Amino acid sequence: MIFGTVATPTVTLGEGNTPLVASGVLARQLGRPGLYFKLESCNPTGSFKDRFAAAEVRAMQAAGHRFCLASSSGNTGSALAAYCARGGLRCHLFVTDETPEDKVLQARAYGAQVYRVAGYGNDPRAAADVDALLLRIAGDHKVPFVVSAYRYCAESMEQLGTISHEMVSQLGFVPDHVFVPVGGGGLLTAAWRGFKTLHGAGRIGRLPRVHGVQPSGNPTVVNAWQARSRDVPPVVSTTRISGLIVPFDVDGALALEAIYESGGRAVAVSDESIWAAQRVLSTGEGIYAEPAGSASVAGFGEAVRAGWIAESNRVVCLVTGHGFKDLRSVDSLARDNPLRLVTPDRIAALDFDAAAPR
Amino acid sequence: MIFGTVATPTVTLGEGNTPLVASGVLARQLGRPGLYFKLESCNPTGSFKDRFAAAEVRAMQAAGHRFCLASSSGNTGSALAAYCARGGLRCHLFVTDETPEDKVLQARAYGAQVYRVAGYGNDPRAAADVDALLLRIAGDHKVPFVVSAYRYCAESMEQLGTISHEMVSQLGFVPDHVFVPVGGGGLLTAAWRGFKTLHGAGRIGRLPRVHGVQPSGNPTVVNAWQARSRDVPPVVSTTRISGLIVPFDVDGALALEAIYESGGRAVAVSDESIWAAQRVLSTGEGIYAEPAGSASVAGFGEAVRAGWIAESNRVVCLVTGHGFKDLRSVDSLARDNPLRLVTPDRIAALDFDAAAPR
Repeated sequence: MIFGTVATPTVTLGEGNTPLVASGVLARQLGRPGLYFKLESCNPTGSFKDRFAAAEVRAMQAAGHRFCLASSSGNTGSALAAYCARGGLRCHLFVTDETPEDKVLQARAYGAQVYRVAGYGNDPRAAADVDALLLRIAGDHKVPFVVSAYRYCAESMEQLGTISHEMVSQLGFVPDHVFVPVGGGGLLTAAWRGFKTLHGAGRIGRLPRVHGVQPSGNPTVVNAWQARSRDVPPVVSTTRISGLIVPFDVDGALALEAIYESGGRAVAVSDESIWAAQRVLSTGEGIYAEPAGSASVAGFGEAVRAGWIAESNRVVCLVTGHGFKDLRSVDSLARDNPLRLVTPDRIAALDFDAAAPR
Repeated sequence: MIFGTVATPTVTLGEGNTPLVASGVLARQLGRPGLYFKLESCNPTGSFKDRFAAAEVRAMQAAGHRFCLASSSGNTGSALAAYCARGGLRCHLFVTDETPEDKVLQARAYGAQVYRVAGYGNDPRAAADVDALLLRIAGDHKVPFVVSAYRYCAESMEQLGTISHEMVSQLGFVPDHVFVPVGGGGLLTAAWRGFKTLHGAGRIGRLPRVHGVQPSGNPTVVNAWQARSRDVPPVVSTTRISGLIVPFDVDGALALEAIYESGGRAVAVSDESIWAAQRVLSTGEGIYAEPAGSASVAGFGEAVRAGWIAESNRVVCLVTGHGFKDLRSVDSLARDNPLRLVTPDRIAALDFDAAAPR
């Protein structure tokens, strides 16, 4: 039997080391040639959450856990479901009213048990109550309650700082600005800490400004930043951008701290401008992103228009999640480019020289 | 104006350098600890075709083309649509009766004009006629007719050989067996040539056996291999595995040649065994693959049962496409793991210790 001698494969699916690509169309349109995208959408389950989930499942395995409770608006759920499947853990996943069906389907396909909780979503008090309840129940079962947030799983969140390490190594320089979508706020926090670690170790000589982008319908961090406050009061969320509906302070105060420390800003953008960014990424850059993953690009556009990005600045936008994560949004962006049904005898008469609808 | 001095960014989305991961559950179940998966699903548009499309679009750009005609059963189409968007080319994409809606949607989202051609699919003569027609019309317009096949675009197909280079470099050794899904046959051909290039350059001391896996409902290469022939007669395809419905010889004869030369085999597997492989990849390994992308794993299982894979053998299965590419298939695999709707007051009473349905 060779079995006994084979080590359990590490819980990894090859997450991280995602592409960093230079912008084409958008860089030209906005007159900012130093624009880059970090494609976290190319992680195995389609979002940056894989970096977190891999670390978290390894920690749960090491602690001898057999199952966990988890809460997610979507991407953490599919990531955790995948890595739990790989690590042999059972995943009980609680999702919100707004979690898109495609993300639920993905988590179910990996074998997670998914529960959609009525009233868990837009309303900050109800959502906080469900989180508290899940935390308590997990405690009763002596298992972890997994949320991709410093507030719950700080150690695994630090793994997201690898994004900043990769960025510097791929670019060969430190960017001037980094734009990050803000839901809970943990990603921005981790990205900033990643840069600080490099700086503290003397591996980079300067630090970027890190900017948080939120939909104007869920402006928790933006409100606080505009008031120059460190408190993040709840809001009633009205945005339709799945993944950025986090109506109360999860890691918002930490993200604010990072923004202040880096000299960054908090930017609010309309849902429409996020969908427009999703469209230009897709049709102009060839990058298939979900709306939440495009928010950084909408925020960058807003910053250029507001005049605080110089032509010579070098900028990275984090594209956090893949287009397949939210096909309803893709459906609406593709609506004006319909599929045509043809019979072979009609093909020769098609007008191929017609200009592309950009 | 800084515009003029900025070089057009190369047409790349960071394709390639995909993860290679060790198997957990399946390696144990089948008693073959040296099993690995190469996750081509982690390419930017979700399949190995990105390596081809990037090269092809760069070549079209260099030749000054403004648009192209292309034919695809799905994954080439979305890849080409993405890289054409990035390269500023218009893509007219002709798809078959069976191309899944999700792949069509993805191509439309990138701005490609997609045409579904009636009668372009299962029937080998009708399909070959449409290909010939498209080739002629493209010629009339003096633009390329792009198909991911040596028969049409040999130079860009060679790019797929990078998969073999990466595999050897990631493993640190040459595997004994490589299992490759066979649709047209070009991927297997390119993978084999990749190994031969390394061998010819003295970078590896031995060669793997390369095996082709087809659904038993589309056994073009399998039939020829069983007859020890070099001819690939057409079949009427009855498989439901999108992407592997190629009922006539595109690169089948080349793939056969590669199989003979490497000492490999051609393996037929049922649609059901492909769906079962998709399921074990997903729930057991945490790998979200489309059915066509799981065929290599079904073929490997068949080979183990047939007795021609030794316990000590080291094996790589190419996982060629992401689960989001064909959500109808994911839907059916997730059917026995339904989403549950709960109200907060019911959560504490849930039975979390229940065994996982594997």
